[in-house]
Amino acid sequence: MFSVPRFLQELPPWAAHLCLDVERFVSEELGIDPRTGLVVACSGGADSTALTIIWHCLMQRHGGSMAVAHLDHGLRVESSEDAVFVKDLCVALDVPFFSERADVAFTASRLGLGWEETGRKLRYAFFEKIRMETGLPFVATAHHLNDLAEDVLLRLCRGTGWPGLGGMTAHDAQRRLVRPLLSIPRSDLIHFLQTLHIPWREDDSNTDVRFARNRIRHSLLPLILEENPNFLKGINRIWRQAGVDRAYWEQRLGNFPGSKDEPFFLSRDRLANLHQAERLRLYKSALDKLGPGQVLTDTLLRLDAAFLSGKPATLQFPGRKVGRSDSKGIHFGPDPRWNPS
Amino acid sequence: MFSVPRFLQELPPWAAHLCLDVERFVSEELGIDPRTGLVVACSGGADSTALTIIWHCLMQRHGGSMAVAHLDHGLRVESSEDAVFVKDLCVALDVPFFSERADVAFTASRLGLGWEETGRKLRYAFFEKIRMETGLPFVATAHHLNDLAEDVLLRLCRGTGWPGLGGMTAHDAQRRLVRPLLSIPRSDLIHFLQTLHIPWREDDSNTDVRFARNRIRHSLLPLILEENPNFLKGINRIWRQAGVDRAYWEQRLGNFPGSKDEPFFLSRDRLANLHQAERLRLYKSALDKLGPGQVLTDTLLRLDAAFLSGKPATLQFPGRKVGRSDSKGIHFGPDPRWNPS
Repeated sequence: MFSVPRFLQELPPWAAHLCLDVERFVSEELGIDPRTGLVVACSGGADSTALTIIWHCLMQRHGGSMAVAHLDHGLRVESSEDAVFVKDLCVALDVPFFSERADVAFTASRLGLGWEETGRKLRYAFFEKIRMETGLPFVATAHHLNDLAEDVLLRLCRGTGWPGLGGMTAHDAQRRLVRPLLSIPRSDLIHFLQTLHIPWREDDSNTDVRFARNRIRHSLLPLILEENPNFLKGINRIWRQAGVDRAYWEQRLGNFPGSKDEPFFLSRDRLANLHQAERLRLYKSALDKLGPGQVLTDTLLRLDAAFLSGKPATLQFPGRKVGRSDSKGIHFGPDPRWNPS
Repeated sequence: MFSVPRFLQELPPWAAHLCLDVERFVSEELGIDPRTGLVVACSGGADSTALTIIWHCLMQRHGGSMAVAHLDHGLRVESSEDAVFVKDLCVALDVPFFSERADVAFTASRLGLGWEETGRKLRYAFFEKIRMETGLPFVATAHHLNDLAEDVLLRLCRGTGWPGLGGMTAHDAQRRLVRPLLSIPRSDLIHFLQTLHIPWREDDSNTDVRFARNRIRHSLLPLILEENPNFLKGINRIWRQAGVDRAYWEQRLGNFPGSKDEPFFLSRDRLANLHQAERLRLYKSALDKLGPGQVLTDTLLRLDAAFLSGKPATLQFPGRKVGRSDSKGIHFGPDPRWNPS
């Protein structure tokens, strides 16, 4: 058991300002009422422990409701101690606590997936279950500005196009997911907990360089921060611009007709009046709506070259999808080789 | 003296394909007739030695003309040997050779600038002089795909927005500058020279980690290439998309009225119908036309917030420029505090 601050007034001014920065970010950047109810996903690590306490202080200020959800991955001997830690935190704050134990290693071998991916799938499924059980509108994760920087670097390494290159969104409406700490550097969260003498649990897997994310965290990011100590501010700028551009393209392309189960058709007339930047995004939007599978700019450019030439061509995309250009326009649909019916 | 291939037919098929890839890049991506005349900037290093030979082979194929320009920076004891090397190469190829010796250290101390920046300024001024003297339409530098990757990383470190984040252009119309090798990895250029037994000059300053560029080359880039061996292909994709988007925004914003010496005015009526993504780029375009000085997205967003609120506000930008928002719209101009007249 430990003592935790429950009201903004109990915090030193610096820590209270941090909480109010989070509140402003949620209301101004995400357009969400900060009194909204959240299921806070808490592993017991520094980031999510800080989020739990920050959001709880904001709740006390506004009213509203919150719950805390913790999934024990069962991968480390100490993992049940993490669950006890988070439970104690919730008792101290007097907020509802939901926990479950998963067998990530077993599920991973059954699904033929890696532990990291399996853990993520099980974790988000559990959070979503608690969200529905509690009737709260959003799940909140503790991703912060350093996580965002790592995400941008990972996307750069993969050659992701714009605006995706700008990193994860802070408000994923489809998944009912929010990231209230996305503009806060990790060092501020650590300072917050240390100032308030609040402990947290260390997860050894965070230092395991087998995971690409950890290699970026422990080798790439420190090198860049040495190059430019203001790098995180730059990432925040790029992220904000990407958000503006994402909204622009969504508005510009409008509501694209069709559903997941139907192939799409873009007539030559409709495409002829568009700039290449618009055509490429329209192709990507059609392909994304056909289902998962990363769309590469190279193939989109080849499809566009085929469209401009007017010669018939069929381009294959990941996720068993094709774009077929002919004299009438471009047809998008599932790859017929995989649907022999 | 050394022997160099002068015709595509003398090259092994792999090397001839590399030359034709460069030709296709210049004609398709840059929209420049490959028969166009070039002043090839040649330091004697591997990259520019390869460019000189590749472009010479392509010239022999098409006709057209070329010249080679070399600036001796006078910073290293061996630098006059570099000039002799490039001269010998030009004699072997039978192309005009132009060389000058600069005193970069002296000029740098006189201008109060670093050696790197001074060297760049003197170099490009010399190339431009030779371009005008020879009457050739473009200067060509040997920047390749690895240089582009380093440039994107540098821009990311600085928080550069889109499409600037996509890296240097291959065709800078204003500076009459082209970069014919920008889609070729450096390893291909080295392989090209080694296959043909062509020597080159090593520049020790390339391995000097005092320069940010070299730190990125020798520590950051190798780490990323370990993470994703296809990273350079991803950079090429991002660069191509940035080029498409740059053209899109230039077309969309249209020709912005005014000149360098006049302040600009964007009426509230004109701005009200635009998306934030368009407004931010219009502000940036106005500020860029007022003169040099990097425009930060943060300040643009603050100016836009002032515009939306309707309350009068003046925002300062680097390069002694201001944006002043009032009930009528936004005025851009030189900072009056710096122009007391």
